[in-house]
Amino acid sequence: MIETPYLLFLGDAPDGLAAKVAQGIRDWRPENCVGQLRMEGCKADLKLEDMTLEQAKAAGAKTLVIGVANRGGKISQAWKKVLVAALEEGFDLASGLHNLLRDEPDLVAVAEACGRSLHDVRVPEVEYPIADGRKRAGKRVLAVGTDCSVGKMYTTLALDAAMRARGMKSTFRATGQTGILITGDGVPLDAVVADFMAGSIEWLTPENDPDHWDVIEGQGSLYHVSFSGVSLALIHGGQPDALVLCHEPTRTHMRGLPDYGLPALEAVRDLSLQLAHVCNPDCRVVGVSINTQHMGDAEAERYCREIEDRMGLPTVDPFRHGADRLAAALAEL
Amino acid sequence: MIETPYLLFLGDAPDGLAAKVAQGIRDWRPENCVGQLRMEGCKADLKLEDMTLEQAKAAGAKTLVIGVANRGGKISQAWKKVLVAALEEGFDLASGLHNLLRDEPDLVAVAEACGRSLHDVRVPEVEYPIADGRKRAGKRVLAVGTDCSVGKMYTTLALDAAMRARGMKSTFRATGQTGILITGDGVPLDAVVADFMAGSIEWLTPENDPDHWDVIEGQGSLYHVSFSGVSLALIHGGQPDALVLCHEPTRTHMRGLPDYGLPALEAVRDLSLQLAHVCNPDCRVVGVSINTQHMGDAEAERYCREIEDRMGLPTVDPFRHGADRLAAALAEL
Repeated sequence: MIETPYLLFLGDAPDGLAAKVAQGIRDWRPENCVGQLRMEGCKADLKLEDMTLEQAKAAGAKTLVIGVANRGGKISQAWKKVLVAALEEGFDLASGLHNLLRDEPDLVAVAEACGRSLHDVRVPEVEYPIADGRKRAGKRVLAVGTDCSVGKMYTTLALDAAMRARGMKSTFRATGQTGILITGDGVPLDAVVADFMAGSIEWLTPENDPDHWDVIEGQGSLYHVSFSGVSLALIHGGQPDALVLCHEPTRTHMRGLPDYGLPALEAVRDLSLQLAHVCNPDCRVVGVSINTQHMGDAEAERYCREIEDRMGLPTVDPFRHGADRLAAALAEL
Repeated sequence: MIETPYLLFLGDAPDGLAAKVAQGIRDWRPENCVGQLRMEGCKADLKLEDMTLEQAKAAGAKTLVIGVANRGGKISQAWKKVLVAALEEGFDLASGLHNLLRDEPDLVAVAEACGRSLHDVRVPEVEYPIADGRKRAGKRVLAVGTDCSVGKMYTTLALDAAMRARGMKSTFRATGQTGILITGDGVPLDAVVADFMAGSIEWLTPENDPDHWDVIEGQGSLYHVSFSGVSLALIHGGQPDALVLCHEPTRTHMRGLPDYGLPALEAVRDLSLQLAHVCNPDCRVVGVSINTQHMGDAEAERYCREIEDRMGLPTVDPFRHGADRLAAALAEL
């Protein structure tokens, strides 16, 4: 669990895309963001107040979050100076970088001396149990995709926001690095040891009020042979009551697998339901989320309407249309 | 890769069952076993020559394999004396114990001083790749089960032996601790990090002669919610050409999951094939393996015949009947 609120570190980001983790935090949890810290030459701007470490500390920030990708896969000396100063100023550090904070001896030494924590959200910090498959009170909805990186995190964050806007009880449950940094908590599922995958998702979505919804970020795809086991662990650990299908219509093959075409939405619906019914016979598919970022407005409208007619399910691009129709479908369940 | 042949350490095993790992090695790879080493009070006996470390060394043994479960989950001082002496005598050590050899500072120090290796087969020793899903030359058969612990390892070891007896090219591919100790090599799949599960199975079953079969030990079950993700990674990493269904007919519920009944063999057949066809459209189910250990001879015969009629597939208990009919079905593919 990462302490909030955050000061967002944008470093020397060459453009806005390099700071997309920080952008996600700012978009989805603005209440977690006290300000931004940019180094000389930084080309990203979240339209947050630029703050020094001292100013952010005075404003209540607890953790400096590295919201930017690093170049060349190492933490530069220029960054190091800021990170060390942040620890000395009393901040914890949080990072989703591939190279870990804990592998930097200087950061470890300073953190220890200052009594601060280093959070590498790529690495599980919890000993997860083995799944026991018991029914838990409360409701759960899971995003399942035709492929990796089709918008499952965005869909579940938007759905969670739409549900809360309607006054429903809802919690977004992160299963990947960016989601964990956004909310300060979650399971880095792709780094969990095989035997504990489903158990980690049970742990993440515990017993709750009967009318509370966990909105679980999906990972991978049952049809993506590199990561399908992770996707199945989400279904069997999450025991979902509802599924939302996620799709990106312009893909010509599965991400990273040039020999594999994408499955039809109907196939993903049927296979996901069949597997979900092993642990929850009442699970239903409630809607479809389409990532239309590569389409114009008219084309996106037409495509969503077409899928809606074909599947008989509310179909939206949450980025263009919001996720309220998906939230409404859940409210009716 | 563990160096063979072995001296099998039975310690102070209170009965034969406690030494079942050693028994498995002795049954399936007698050519890997130079002798057994028993401490005072040992009640297990593999009918191998009892040897001192010196005698075994002279007879060519390279590795002392801990083929016995330890009591109380710790390596006793009595065992330690033998293990240290073995390292000093020039043996490597191999263990599938839950508590690791590498966590014992005295063993680590002696191993280092003597230039010997400590193999904890519960822990991956390889950096596995992410699966790329590419078609590989050679053929693969995988055991899939209605539940955990229904005899998938036994079935695949027996099948591998039957295939080689027929002159087929075949390699047993271990995916669990006992299988790895038996053959000296394999992937401890339940301990592999989620993202690399399918890749580890691709690594385990690489390109081979077109008429060579990898016989892949299965794990878990698609219907076992604690471990189903592991089972799916085996299907999508293994790209099987053939599946053998494994079942234990006296189970009243899924192992460790009192609320979950067992799936029908037909359900396991259909779901496994559907998932296998994602990576190999030609995959077929070739036979059924029944674990009849809790049945009498007549009942076992009757049950297998019944399943054979119902499924239209050769059905055997490899322990009672051998696995030649399954090997024959593969030879005909």
